[in-house]
Amino acid sequence: MKPLKIGILGGGQLGRMLLQSAANYHVETHVLESGKNPPASSLCHHFTEGDIRDYDTVYAFGKKVDVLTIEIENVSVEALFQLEAEGIKIIPRPGVLHTIKDKGLQKEFYKKHNIPTSDYILTDNEEDLKTKLSFLPAAHKLRTGGYDGKGVSILKSESDVNKAFSEPSVLEKLVDIDKEIAVMVARDQSGETAVYPPVEMVFDPKYNLVDMLVSPADITLAQTAEVQRIARSVIEAFDSPGVFAVEMFLDKAGNILVNETAPRAHNSGHQSIEGNYSSQYDMQMRIMQKLPLGNTGTIMPSLMLNLIGEEGHSGAVYYKGMDEALKIKGVYIHLYGKHETKPGRKMGHITIIGENKNDLLDKARSLKELIKVISY
Amino acid sequence: MKPLKIGILGGGQLGRMLLQSAANYHVETHVLESGKNPPASSLCHHFTEGDIRDYDTVYAFGKKVDVLTIEIENVSVEALFQLEAEGIKIIPRPGVLHTIKDKGLQKEFYKKHNIPTSDYILTDNEEDLKTKLSFLPAAHKLRTGGYDGKGVSILKSESDVNKAFSEPSVLEKLVDIDKEIAVMVARDQSGETAVYPPVEMVFDPKYNLVDMLVSPADITLAQTAEVQRIARSVIEAFDSPGVFAVEMFLDKAGNILVNETAPRAHNSGHQSIEGNYSSQYDMQMRIMQKLPLGNTGTIMPSLMLNLIGEEGHSGAVYYKGMDEALKIKGVYIHLYGKHETKPGRKMGHITIIGENKNDLLDKARSLKELIKVISY
Repeated sequence: MKPLKIGILGGGQLGRMLLQSAANYHVETHVLESGKNPPASSLCHHFTEGDIRDYDTVYAFGKKVDVLTIEIENVSVEALFQLEAEGIKIIPRPGVLHTIKDKGLQKEFYKKHNIPTSDYILTDNEEDLKTKLSFLPAAHKLRTGGYDGKGVSILKSESDVNKAFSEPSVLEKLVDIDKEIAVMVARDQSGETAVYPPVEMVFDPKYNLVDMLVSPADITLAQTAEVQRIARSVIEAFDSPGVFAVEMFLDKAGNILVNETAPRAHNSGHQSIEGNYSSQYDMQMRIMQKLPLGNTGTIMPSLMLNLIGEEGHSGAVYYKGMDEALKIKGVYIHLYGKHETKPGRKMGHITIIGENKNDLLDKARSLKELIKVISY
Repeated sequence: MKPLKIGILGGGQLGRMLLQSAANYHVETHVLESGKNPPASSLCHHFTEGDIRDYDTVYAFGKKVDVLTIEIENVSVEALFQLEAEGIKIIPRPGVLHTIKDKGLQKEFYKKHNIPTSDYILTDNEEDLKTKLSFLPAAHKLRTGGYDGKGVSILKSESDVNKAFSEPSVLEKLVDIDKEIAVMVARDQSGETAVYPPVEMVFDPKYNLVDMLVSPADITLAQTAEVQRIARSVIEAFDSPGVFAVEMFLDKAGNILVNETAPRAHNSGHQSIEGNYSSQYDMQMRIMQKLPLGNTGTIMPSLMLNLIGEEGHSGAVYYKGMDEALKIKGVYIHLYGKHETKPGRKMGHITIIGENKNDLLDKARSLKELIKVISY
């Protein structure tokens, strides 16, 4: 039997880690991405250099494979609709990507499906926004094109209007956040669903990037059940196979609000490589091959720490402190094969597995001091 | 800082799994192997098609990298000696490969270093053997070129002489085997050593291949300490960095005898990917980069089952029963990217992790019935 031809749109770190899992299976891997040497290019059977946002490029690439998936939302969804119509299996469905890529449509989707989310209104441009200032304080988010914290602006009062976007955006009520939780959900091609234990995030206020997360989240059993129930309901509403990250806020009044969903492997699932029986990447491989979903159970509690380029360092990367870090029991380093660092760039991550959250946090604090992503 | 250039001689499954680990580090990977699409060729930065036994080919390949390692012993050791003399770091040392490649020299090495091993004599050819028949019953092993059980013949009595080899061979006293144990040992470039928990092997008599192994081995604490002590002493005698598998017999009289050593990642260490904090492949990557040795501790007991081509099936491979197998908790499938199966060919392996040996063995028995490597 010929190996299944799997195409991945995007060649970044998520694609790279997906390919590490793909090597366990009987598949032929194809990657489309711009540039000569993106992180995933050296781990696939066939690398195509091209723009994942370009209709013709994506269409031609998709015609070569049996199953097509993504590692980033910012792709030509129009080409995916056409490929789907021609019988290529697309995971996740293009319709889901169409909704999720636009934070406005995404918010409306939650509202329509009675999924709890913060109150919001849409703004078209600066003029429009100025007529809606009574809605502040609020977060102003670009409907499309934002990523890794870019495209989000906090408007506390009218005096912050200069920080607002003049393009179509969502204005969301600020949530009085107690915790930020993410739940990874896997759904196979027959509609079976498996839900991972929730993870708890800690943000780096400087770069607005997820900096650290702990799995499982330190919340009550009742909260765990409820966030898992909500995450599952989101994916059931989307009605698409794939791996999804549902990001939620627990507010100080005890409410659970869905912030946003990513229809793909996600930063919030990296620790599953070591911490869970079936990692998010293994799940994605299983789903594409119509294999049974894996076990989402926890092998051991885990903590994930992003490795982010230090301020003031741009150029050939050097990972200072790797030596000391790798002496610590239960520490795993994942570097993304990016040759150049720059301030705030995600260059890799560390997972720590251990018996309990306090032990993990202690080790994480030492690691944050030890490891620095600099140029050299 | 430029990534370290790592060269691997051999492009089979061991190289493939090493590359899966290599993707976590800041390295540039080079593979040398014959054929267009060996298992490791799609996971490296640079694949060179060429004969790893050819002096000029290996020499030219070695000159391109900073550190050179192997995934099979059958390479041009002469080229490695020259490269070592010219300052290329070779792991393991060529001198070790020279000794180990020749089972006769290997036996003499054990004798010289007071490492317990079965009695043996050397035979040059059939004529020579015929003068030494009083040594039977014994195992006759080709001094060079044997692998995966090939090149071994059991000579019970004089009437088996027709099964003997007429090339230089070792004639070894048969051991009344109680258990076969392997201990993986990792040694870094500064001479630090880390020893894995021993594993216990079960052979498939039909193909003389390791078929299944359990980690940690079901032996007493005293036996564990002793096999680990012996394994460490073997690697100290070899005085070389690298990952090593020391295979031992426990005989029915309670003796421990070293059978042979492989100076590389080994079938006996596959389960370490899921079962131990640092896998044998991660260890090899750490050693090459002069990073600290990893933790050899057991995360959970594990069992490894080779996936071997069924009798009567040659051609494009199909893995029957994958679906059912992957429903079982704690089951991990590793396929080696070989397109064609043939009887007895190692096509992949399965690791199971679980709470205890009985649970693992129960699951393994089901899996052996479920999964068949056939052509289709």
